[in-house]
Parts: sequence; structure tokens; C-alpha cells
Amino acid sequence: MGISHLISIVGAGPGDPELLTVKAVNRLKNADVILYDALAGNEILDLAKPGAEKIYVGKLHNDGQNQVERQNSIHAKFLKFSKQNKTVLRLKSGDPMVFGRGAEEVRFCRENNLNYEVIPGVTAGIAASAFFDIPLTERGKSSSLLFCSGQRENGCFSNMDSIAHILNSGSSAVIYMGLNILADLACALIKNSVESSTPVQILSNISRINQSICSTTLGNVSTFLEQNEPDSPATIIIGKHATQI
Amino acid sequence: MGISHLISIVGAGPGDPELLTVKAVNRLKNADVILYDALAGNEILDLAKPGAEKIYVGKLHNDGQNQVERQNSIHAKFLKFSKQNKTVLRLKSGDPMVFGRGAEEVRFCRENNLNYEVIPGVTAGIAASAFFDIPLTERGKSSSLLFCSGQRENGCFSNMDSIAHILNSGSSAVIYMGLNILADLACALIKNSVESSTPVQILSNISRINQSICSTTLGNVSTFLEQNEPDSPATIIIGKHATQI
Repeated sequence: MGISHLISIVGAGPGDPELLTVKAVNRLKNADVILYDALAGNEILDLAKPGAEKIYVGKLHNDGQNQVERQNSIHAKFLKFSKQNKTVLRLKSGDPMVFGRGAEEVRFCRENNLNYEVIPGVTAGIAASAFFDIPLTERGKSSSLLFCSGQRENGCFSNMDSIAHILNSGSSAVIYMGLNILADLACALIKNSVESSTPVQILSNISRINQSICSTTLGNVSTFLEQNEPDSPATIIIGKHATQI
Repeated sequence: MGISHLISIVGAGPGDPELLTVKAVNRLKNADVILYDALAGNEILDLAKPGAEKIYVGKLHNDGQNQVERQNSIHAKFLKFSKQNKTVLRLKSGDPMVFGRGAEEVRFCRENNLNYEVIPGVTAGIAASAFFDIPLTERGKSSSLLFCSGQRENGCFSNMDSIAHILNSGSSAVIYMGLNILADLACALIKNSVESSTPVQILSNISRINQSICSTTLGNVSTFLEQNEPDSPATIIIGKHATQI
């Protein structure tokens, strides 16, 4: 099969084990070592073969971990287990290449001549659309779709212009890891002349039994978040047409 | 189980049957009727239960079908088979809500009180990233990702500004159904001050046995396409950092 000693960098999807791909399940059942992220639930980890070593390598908001050290430690495990001829499954939430640092792990594997593969997964923004009936694209309404993170540089959102531009064109933006910066982002978008009436959907625990939606608008986000506390993890969809069908 | 008489609007992923979700496979095995698109291969359709009715409802570029009539005919089948108490699987390439007209089918189901669900799938742009080692986002390089179609209105690309804006910010754009308009799009982007050296990746038959990549630049796309004919279906990734790792 040629999959011995393989490092599989796998997207686990948004949480529901049924949203794993068949390929991801096959690799899970075969792996000797599973390096898993914060959002991988027990139902998914239970698919592993008996005796598989399961190692938590995740990061949660404000858990105090240094991100560079954490990533280096994951890479070190790639090397260590490959040398031991073990099959490694690197299980990442959503998709590895969409805000998942998959590129860094691929680069490390290539630089160290490790045998690897990437298996794509269902990313949270797309799953949110499916489970909450929120169109992401629609003919004649929104012909683009922006995925972005709430990343800041020197206090400013590094992709503010792009988000404002997409929203003003009538298309939608999906914000990953954005709950903590949402109030600031909404304020900045309105300053960048995005209409304050633009709908905002906050989707928590997508595809899980406790999934929930909070609907507000850019202008009302701050007040809403003062009075409500949506669950983490949450994905946010903003857009004129990004309302439930 | 409560899934009898259900219409499942399902993303089949990019083509490899192993990239179906477990949920999609379960629904395929249970459906009485399968309404499938052009890109659903036999390997996927063969997962259906014996005796399932498989009806082609797809559209290929330049096949002469009227898109509105085609969509109405799909909706009519939703009604017809629901009335017959049959379980329907609407099998769509990639993900239903990303350039898949899933929103129109959901709206029809809601308006007609049909019992439906949407099951998300792996979309082609994300699969392309995984199978060709092309980062879609990367910390410090590209913090946004634009998905768009090559849709035109009155001869102009309706989302030209957004694409140019994203590319000029250093992030990447994934163009769906874009092979036929790629030369024109590249030309228009360069006119909109996107650097002609920006890398362009043309990914054909993603996840299939015959998948292939063609790499060029915005400035060279026209010449490249005069001398080469990349296979359809193709997804295109454009971006300063959208090169193979």
C-alpha cells in the first residue's frame, strides 16, 4: 500500500465524526500515532486502532503556549516517529491548508525528506453555510467569498481593506477565529464605510449536537456581545446576503 | 431515523470517492433516487444501493441547456419523488453552497415544505491546495483567501475589483469554472495593476488519477493557453504566495 511510515496531515472537518472523509477514517484506523488538535472530539479519536498513541498537540486561545515552540514540538514529533517507522496522523480541525498551518508542516516534511500527504477536510465556514442555510455564493447576488482571519498587526486588522471591499460589493466574508475581535472588527468596518445594517451571523459548535446561531448586524455587534456570550469555537459570516434562507 | 422522504443536498467533493464524507456515503447507500451532476463518477454512483434510480441532471459548458429550465426540472423532481415518499439524494460536485446553486435548491425545499438537509463537501479549491502543496493561507504572508467565479456581466468581470484587491494585498484567489475566461481575466487583472509576474496555477482533475498542474504567470497566461490545453474541469489559484511548497 505504500502508506507505512507515512505522515498524513488530515483535515478532520468541523467536529461531527460523520463529516470526516472516508480517507481520513481509513488513515485514522491505520495510524500508530495521532497528533491531535484542541477541537478533535473523543468520538473521532475513538476511531483509532487499539493501542494507537494519541498525543494532544493543540492550542487554545489564551492557554499561554508559545505558538512557535508548539509548532517546533510538532515537527520534532514528525521526525521522532518517522525514525521509529511509525505511521503518523496529524489531525487538524477543519482543513489543514485553510488557517491551519498545514503549509508549515508540509514545508518541514519536504525539507526533512519525510514521506507525507495532505488530506483535505470540510472547512468550518462551508459547514456553517450547510447547517444554517446561509448561502455563501448565489447567482446575481454574491459571486465571491472571502475567508479571512481576525489577525492584527500593530493593532490594525491586516486585511481590513479586503474585507470592507468584499462586503461593499455585496459578497460575504467568513471570519475564522474571530469571536474575540468581532466587536473591534465591526467598528473598523463601519469606519471603512460598510453599512452598519450588514447582517452578521455567529455560528458556534458547527455540526455538533450543541451548534447554535446568533444573528445581529455590524452596528449592533458590540451591544449584542455585551449582553450575550456565544460559545467558542465560533465562525462568523458577514454579508448583505448572508442571512438564513 | 427520520430520514425517510428526505432530500439530501450533498457535496460529493472533488472526485475521488475517498473524499466523500462518511455522511455522504451513508446517504448514498440509503437513497431511492440519486440526482447527479456532470462530475460525479461511476465509482461514486456505484456506492448506491441496488435498484436505486440514478438520474443525470448535470450541465456541461456549452451543452446548450438552458440553466433556468434545468434548475426548474431538478426542483420538479424534488417534488415528484417526495410525493412518492422516496428518499432523494441530490449529489453535487464539491460543496453545494460554494458556486453550486445549493441555495436555490434549499429555497425551493423550504417554499414547498419539503424535508431536506444539506451535507457539506470538500470544495475543489481546498482539495487543490492539499494535493498540490499550494498554501492558501500562511501566517505573515496571506491572511485572506478569495473564492470567486469567472462570472461576467455586460462583458466585464463582476468581481474584478475584489480579485485585484486581494491579489495586490498578497493573498490568493481561487477561480472556479475559470479556464475559459482565464486569458481575459489575466489581461484585465494586469490592467487593474496586478503584477504580471503573479503566479497562476491551473489544477485539472483534482484528486483524480489523472490530476495535473500547469504553472504560469498572469503575464504569460495567454501565450501558455495558446500552446497548451489544460484538461477540464480545472480550478485556478492565483497569488504571489500560491506556488508549490
